[in-house]
Amino acid sequence: MRHSRLLIATALTMIPAAAAAEEGMWTFDNFPIAAANRDLGTSIDQKWLDKVRLASVRIGGASGGLVSPDGLVLTNEHVASGCVEDLSTPERNYVQTGFTPQSRAEERKCPGTVAEVLTAITDVTARMQAAGAGLSGEAFTRARSAEAGKIEAEACGADKSRRCQVVTLYRGGQFKLYTYRRYTDVRLAFAPEHRAAAFGGDLDNFAFPRFAVDAAFLRLYENGQPVKTPGYLRWNAAPPQENQPVFVSGSPGATQRLLTQAQLRTVQDVTLPLEQLINSELRGRLLQFAAQNEQNAFVAGQAISGIENTYKRGFGRQQSLIDQRFMAGRAKAEAEFRARVAADAALRQLIGDPWTELANLQPEVARLYPGYYMLEGRAGGGSQLYNWAEDLVRGAIEKTKPSGERLPEYGDARLAAVENGLLATRPTYPALDEVQLAWWLSKTREILTVDDPRIAQVLGKESPEGLAARLARGTKLGDPAVRKALWDGGLPAIKASTDPLIQFLLRIQDVTRATRTEYEAKVQAPTDRASEALAKARFAVFGTSLYPDATGTLRLTYGRLRGWTYQGRVIPYATTFGGLWQRATGAEPFDVAPRLLAAKDRIPASTILDVAASTDTIGGSSGSPAINAKGEIIGANFDSTVLTQRNAYGYDPELNRSVLVTTTAITAALRHAYGQSHLLAELGVR
Amino acid sequence: MRHSRLLIATALTMIPAAAAAEEGMWTFDNFPIAAANRDLGTSIDQKWLDKVRLASVRIGGASGGLVSPDGLVLTNEHVASGCVEDLSTPERNYVQTGFTPQSRAEERKCPGTVAEVLTAITDVTARMQAAGAGLSGEAFTRARSAEAGKIEAEACGADKSRRCQVVTLYRGGQFKLYTYRRYTDVRLAFAPEHRAAAFGGDLDNFAFPRFAVDAAFLRLYENGQPVKTPGYLRWNAAPPQENQPVFVSGSPGATQRLLTQAQLRTVQDVTLPLEQLINSELRGRLLQFAAQNEQNAFVAGQAISGIENTYKRGFGRQQSLIDQRFMAGRAKAEAEFRARVAADAALRQLIGDPWTELANLQPEVARLYPGYYMLEGRAGGGSQLYNWAEDLVRGAIEKTKPSGERLPEYGDARLAAVENGLLATRPTYPALDEVQLAWWLSKTREILTVDDPRIAQVLGKESPEGLAARLARGTKLGDPAVRKALWDGGLPAIKASTDPLIQFLLRIQDVTRATRTEYEAKVQAPTDRASEALAKARFAVFGTSLYPDATGTLRLTYGRLRGWTYQGRVIPYATTFGGLWQRATGAEPFDVAPRLLAAKDRIPASTILDVAASTDTIGGSSGSPAINAKGEIIGANFDSTVLTQRNAYGYDPELNRSVLVTTTAITAALRHAYGQSHLLAELGVR
Repeated sequence: MRHSRLLIATALTMIPAAAAAEEGMWTFDNFPIAAANRDLGTSIDQKWLDKVRLASVRIGGASGGLVSPDGLVLTNEHVASGCVEDLSTPERNYVQTGFTPQSRAEERKCPGTVAEVLTAITDVTARMQAAGAGLSGEAFTRARSAEAGKIEAEACGADKSRRCQVVTLYRGGQFKLYTYRRYTDVRLAFAPEHRAAAFGGDLDNFAFPRFAVDAAFLRLYENGQPVKTPGYLRWNAAPPQENQPVFVSGSPGATQRLLTQAQLRTVQDVTLPLEQLINSELRGRLLQFAAQNEQNAFVAGQAISGIENTYKRGFGRQQSLIDQRFMAGRAKAEAEFRARVAADAALRQLIGDPWTELANLQPEVARLYPGYYMLEGRAGGGSQLYNWAEDLVRGAIEKTKPSGERLPEYGDARLAAVENGLLATRPTYPALDEVQLAWWLSKTREILTVDDPRIAQVLGKESPEGLAARLARGTKLGDPAVRKALWDGGLPAIKASTDPLIQFLLRIQDVTRATRTEYEAKVQAPTDRASEALAKARFAVFGTSLYPDATGTLRLTYGRLRGWTYQGRVIPYATTFGGLWQRATGAEPFDVAPRLLAAKDRIPASTILDVAASTDTIGGSSGSPAINAKGEIIGANFDSTVLTQRNAYGYDPELNRSVLVTTTAITAALRHAYGQSHLLAELGVR
Repeated sequence: MRHSRLLIATALTMIPAAAAAEEGMWTFDNFPIAAANRDLGTSIDQKWLDKVRLASVRIGGASGGLVSPDGLVLTNEHVASGCVEDLSTPERNYVQTGFTPQSRAEERKCPGTVAEVLTAITDVTARMQAAGAGLSGEAFTRARSAEAGKIEAEACGADKSRRCQVVTLYRGGQFKLYTYRRYTDVRLAFAPEHRAAAFGGDLDNFAFPRFAVDAAFLRLYENGQPVKTPGYLRWNAAPPQENQPVFVSGSPGATQRLLTQAQLRTVQDVTLPLEQLINSELRGRLLQFAAQNEQNAFVAGQAISGIENTYKRGFGRQQSLIDQRFMAGRAKAEAEFRARVAADAALRQLIGDPWTELANLQPEVARLYPGYYMLEGRAGGGSQLYNWAEDLVRGAIEKTKPSGERLPEYGDARLAAVENGLLATRPTYPALDEVQLAWWLSKTREILTVDDPRIAQVLGKESPEGLAARLARGTKLGDPAVRKALWDGGLPAIKASTDPLIQFLLRIQDVTRATRTEYEAKVQAPTDRASEALAKARFAVFGTSLYPDATGTLRLTYGRLRGWTYQGRVIPYATTFGGLWQRATGAEPFDVAPRLLAAKDRIPASTILDVAASTDTIGGSSGSPAINAKGEIIGANFDSTVLTQRNAYGYDPELNRSVLVTTTAITAALRHAYGQSHLLAELGVR
C-alpha cells in the first residue's frame, strides 16, 4: 500500500496538537458545539445533544438508535447476528432467510442481550486519583479498581434497572461516573437475510464502494411490553446528499491515539504481529472446520466473521504503522508536545519525563505481553463454554470477597451483567468450542514455550488436542439449568462439581491470576501512572480542547457525507442498488440475497444504498445512528474503510471514512423485499 | 525476546566488514584454509578440501555425505521423509515404524529423488557480465538467463549423468559454472521411526537442547548396482568433545546478508509479514484437516511439517529484524562501507550510488511483491498435482522455443530434472491438494483484492473453494502414465487435454507470466544491476576475503562444538540419551518412538545424542556431513536454533549455533534399537 503526500501534512494535526475539523470522538459533556456548528454550518444546541444522547443505545459492544416511541432500535444486522444465530437452527435458519415477523407478537427475545441508555455523567476524578495516590504496582491498580467499584455500588446499589460505570478518560486524566438505564429484555424485530447485510463477505469488509443492507431492528421490552421512548429519532428516508452534515452517536471501542511513539513501536513490533499471526491460524482452522460439512459451516459462521473482522482491522493497522509518512507526522507531533512541556519548568517539575519512563518500560511489555495475552486476554480462544466456565469459577471465588477486593469485572455493580450472560438460553456447539480450545491451548504452549512452568499447570500431562476434546465433549455447561445451579450454589457447588471445564478452570486459577497480577503490576500500573502524567501535561498545554481516546463509551462525532481520492482514484460518496445488481456475480460472496434479488424490479436502481462519511468512528461504532442537523436519523454506521484503520492511532481527514447504510436503503428493503409494512408504519413512512 | 549486549559488538563484524572467525559459508574454490587452520589449530589442506567436496552430496534442496565405498549416504530423516512417506501406505506406514531393511536387496527407490556431487567449478563471470552489458529491465534478465542456459548446454549437452549450473555469487559479482555428477536412482537404506527423528515435534524444532535421532541413510545406485565411492568419509563414532573443531559441508539455501538496510526494511515490513500471515492460515487449515481423521493426518503430515518449519524460521527472522541492537550493528556496517566507497572517487564514479537506487526501488517492490508471490512464488499452495500440471503446461510451451528464450527453469540443461520429477511414481492425495489449492486461490483473491483484473482471469466465475474442488477432484494427473503421455505429447497433447488442471494452467498462463515479467523487469532487473554495482564495490574494498550469500550450492563452514549463554542461561554443547528419557512425557510430541524406547536399557544414558556447533549454516544445510580435522564424519547437521535464524541477515558468533545429530547416537540407535548390523558392518563399526 502506498501513501498520498497529503498524509504528511494531515498527520501533523493529530493529537496531541489541536484536533482537525471533523476529528474527534467527543464525550457528550464536552462536545464542541460551537466548533461543530461553525465547521458544518449547523445550529445544534445542548437540547439537541441531550435528545441524541437519550436516543443512543449501547448494545453489548456495539451501538444503536431509538427510532420509534415504542422502543424500536435501529442497529446493524452484524450487531444482531449473534441473536439471529441463537434463534436459528440448521432447519429454521434465519441467517439464511432473514427474520421478518409480521407483527410485534412474533418478535423474539435475544438471549443475553442487554441494552443501555446513558442517563447521567458525573465527574469522579478527585476520588479516583486520591485512591491511587502514593501507591504503585499492584496496590495502585487494586486501589483504583476498588474505588471504582465503590463509587459504582454507591450510585447504583442493587438496582438492576440501572448500571453505573466509572470510565477512565484521557488515560487517567479524568474519571467519570456514567449511569445507564438498563434493559435486559431485548427482542429481535427484524433482520434481513445475512447475505443482504454481508454482500461481498470478508472481501468487501472494510471496503467502499459497498453494497450492504447491514441493518436490523431490535426492540426494548420491560414487563413484557415495549418500552415507551418518546425521545426517539425521527426516521428520515429522503436520499442523503453529498456533503450533507452528519453526526454519529455511538460507543467506539478503543483508540490508541494518546500512546507515545515508544508504546506504538511495541504495538508494531510485538503485540499486533503476535495477535495477527496466531489469529490467522485460528482463521485457517475455523475455515477448514466449516468446509467439512454444512452443519459445521452453520455453527462456525459467527466465529469466522469475528476473526476475519479482527484480522482485517489488524491488517489495516499494520499498514498504517509501516507508513513512514504517517508515523513521521505522529513523531513530529510528539516532539512538539515534548518541547512545549520542556519549555515549561513548572510543568516539567510536576510531570517528570513520562515519555522516557514509558520507553524504558517497553522491554518489560514485550516480555510479559505474550503470556498475558494467551492466558488472560485470549483465554479459551473464544469458546462460549469456556467463557461461561470462567464466569462461574471466578464469579464464585470473587463473590466470597468484599466487592472492592474482587477482580473488577466481578464487583457488585457488574455482577448483574455477568449473571445475565450466564443464565441466557442459547445454543452451544461443542465441536466449535473444541476447535477454539485446541487452538488456544496449542498456541499458548507454542508462544510461552513448552518449558514455561505455567504450561505444565495448564496442560498437565495432556496434549492440547486431547485436553480440548475432553473439556468440550465432557462439559455439561451447555445446559442453562446446570449453569444456574452452579451460579446459585456459589463456591461450594463449584468445588464439588465434577464438570471437566469447571475443574479445569479451578486448576488454572493460580497460574492465570498470577500472570495477570504480574502484568498489572509491572506493565499496567506503571503505564497508567505515566499516562496520567502525560494527561496532566496535555491538559496544561491544550486544555479540554481535546477529546479522550475511545473507551467503549458513548461519543459523538461529526462530519459530512463525502467520498475521497486515493492514488488518483476518486471514490464517490454513495452507492446505489443499481451498483449492487452490477457487482453481483451470482457466486458467493457476491450473490445477492434471494429476497432482495426478487425485489430488483421494484427498487429503483438509483436508490442510494450506502454512503461514506468523514465522521471519526472505529469498531464499536457499529450500529451508531447517523443523524442530521435536525436530529433525524438518516442511517446506521456499520463499518469504516481499511485505510481508516489507521485512525486507531490518528485521524486523517483526507482518508478517514465511516461507512453507513442509509434509511433510504433500509426503507426500500423493508418495503420491497421484506414486506415489513407494520414497521414502516411505525417508522412513520408513508 | 530480549537481547544480549554482545550483539552490538558482534554485529559490527558482519558483512561487508571482514568476516569474524567461524563466520562464513565459503565456496570450495575460495575457502580460507590458512585462517581456518589458525582459528581451529588444525592442518587441513587442498587435498582434504577436494576429498570433502567429492564426498558431499546434494539431495534435492538438502545435503548428505558419502560414508561407505558402496554409495551409502548419511542424511537427515527429515530430508528422506518425503521418500519414506511416498513408500508408505496407511496400512504399511514406515513413517511410524521406521524403514529398517535387513539387507541391500530390500532398499527401495525414492520416487523422483536426485543426488548430485560437485565435480568442477569454472569461472564464467566475464561471459555472463558481457551478456547483460548495456541492457536493462526484462531484456537484461532474459539475456543473462539465455547466456547461462547456453553455457550450461555447451558444458553438459544432453548427458543426463551430469548437470551443469551457472551459479550467481556475490549477487552478480561472480558467476561460476558448477558441474555435478548426477544420480537418479537413489534408494532408501534406513530411516528410524519419524518420532525418533522428530522428538518434540514443532515445539522443539529450532530448539536446543534437543533429543532427535534425525538421521537416515540413502544409497546411490547406477545400472541397478550401488555406486562405487572410494572417496567416502570414514565413520567415527567416538563421543565428540566440547570445543572440538568441526567442518560442515553442504548446500545452504539462501542468506540475505548482502542486502542493504533499505531492502531489509522491505523484508521486515512487507514480504516477511505477508508470508508469515498467510502461511499461518494455511497451517491452521492443514492442522484442522489433519484433525478430521487418521487418514487425513497421514496425508497431511509432510505438508504440516513443512509449513511449521517455514513459519518458525520466519518467526526467528522477524525477531531479529526488530532487535534494534542487531539492526543498529548492521546499519553501522553499511554506513562504514558507504563511507569507504565515498572516500574513493574512482570507485564512486564506477559504481554510482546503488544504495540510493535500491532505496528508491523499494516502494515498487512493496507494490509488486504480493502479486508476484501469490501468482508465481506460492502458486498452487504446495499442491503436488498443481506443480505437475505447471511443469507439463509450461514445459510444453517452453520446449517449442529455442533453449535461450525459455523460462530459465525449462532450459535444455534443466529439463532432465523437470522430467525426473514429473515421471516419478508417487502417491497423491487429492483431498490435501484441495486444501492447498483452496487456500492459495482464496488468499490470492484476498491479497490482490477482488477488483484486481487478474483475479477474474484466475477464478472466472467460480469461488476459490469450488474451483479448488473441481480441479483437485477432477484431475487425472495423479496417474504417472497420464503425466508421461502429456509430457511426451508436448503442446498438442496439452492443448487437446480435457484435464481440468491442465486447462486451468493453460488459462492462467497469460496472467501469471505477465505478473512474473513485470516483477522481473521492474524489481528483479534493477535490483540485480544495483547489487552487481555493490558487489564490485565490495570486491574493490575487501577483495575476496568475503564469502558470497548462500545460493543453494555447495559451501564449507567451520567452527567448534560449543554451547552458549543467553539471558544468563548456560546451554551445554551436547545432549545425551539420558536427557531424552528425562524429557519424555509419553504424550505427543514428547513420546519416545517405541523401538527407540525399547532400547532404553541397552543404550547408556551418557551416550551423546545431539551437539551444537558454531558453524555457519542455514536451511538447506540439512543433512550436511559434520567432519573432523582428519576428514572423518562425526555427525549430520539437521537444524539451527531459533536465535540463529538471524543469520539470514548476519552471523553472530555468540548465538549462532548449528544443531547436529552425532555418529555416536546414530551408531547406538542402529545397533540397539534398529538391528542394523549390516549397515554397522558397512560403516566399519566393530
